[in-house]
Amino acid sequence: MIGVTARLPVQAGKEAEFEAVFGALAEKVNANEAGCHLYELYRTPGTPDYIVLERYADRAALDAHGKTDYFLAAQPALGGLLAGVPKIEVFESV
Amino acid sequence: MIGVTARLPVQAGKEAEFEAVFGALAEKVNANEAGCHLYELYRTPGTPDYIVLERYADRAALDAHGKTDYFLAAQPALGGLLAGVPKIEVFESV
Repeated sequence: MIGVTARLPVQAGKEAEFEAVFGALAEKVNANEAGCHLYELYRTPGTPDYIVLERYADRAALDAHGKTDYFLAAQPALGGLLAGVPKIEVFESV
Repeated sequence: MIGVTARLPVQAGKEAEFEAVFGALAEKVNANEAGCHLYELYRTPGTPDYIVLERYADRAALDAHGKTDYFLAAQPALGGLLAGVPKIEVFESV
């Protein structure tokens, strides 16, 4: 199993817009990617950061996720709402 | 949903022992806690850190987890294998 955490600092006042864009993306991920077992948006209380917890069957499923048309199409909109560089970490299950 | 990441720096050479102790704990968590939807151990390539990705139905499920006898019983053994202070983060799903 491959685990991913994506820490996304969102601009103040852009939270609702970010949640809407991300929510639409997550719907497509969950509807189309059998190899993706978790793709869920969280907030860290007291910080502007959102965290996406992700879980994939294997590296191939993660790679395929990053190449889907809907994922690529969402990046400009999501990127425009960030207040800094995302911090992405990829883990391998034991 | 409540998400948790627990970053655990393990002492060099103690990885196998840590994985065994944690694996036994995870088995009990998965067998006993309906409110825990994910309790999975990962490694971060190139670092001594392990990461536990956790997911709970709500705060009550997380609180109950931390009070189980088997969780409390595992802490001395796990703690003795760490090389530093764990970094625990708790998130709320959007």
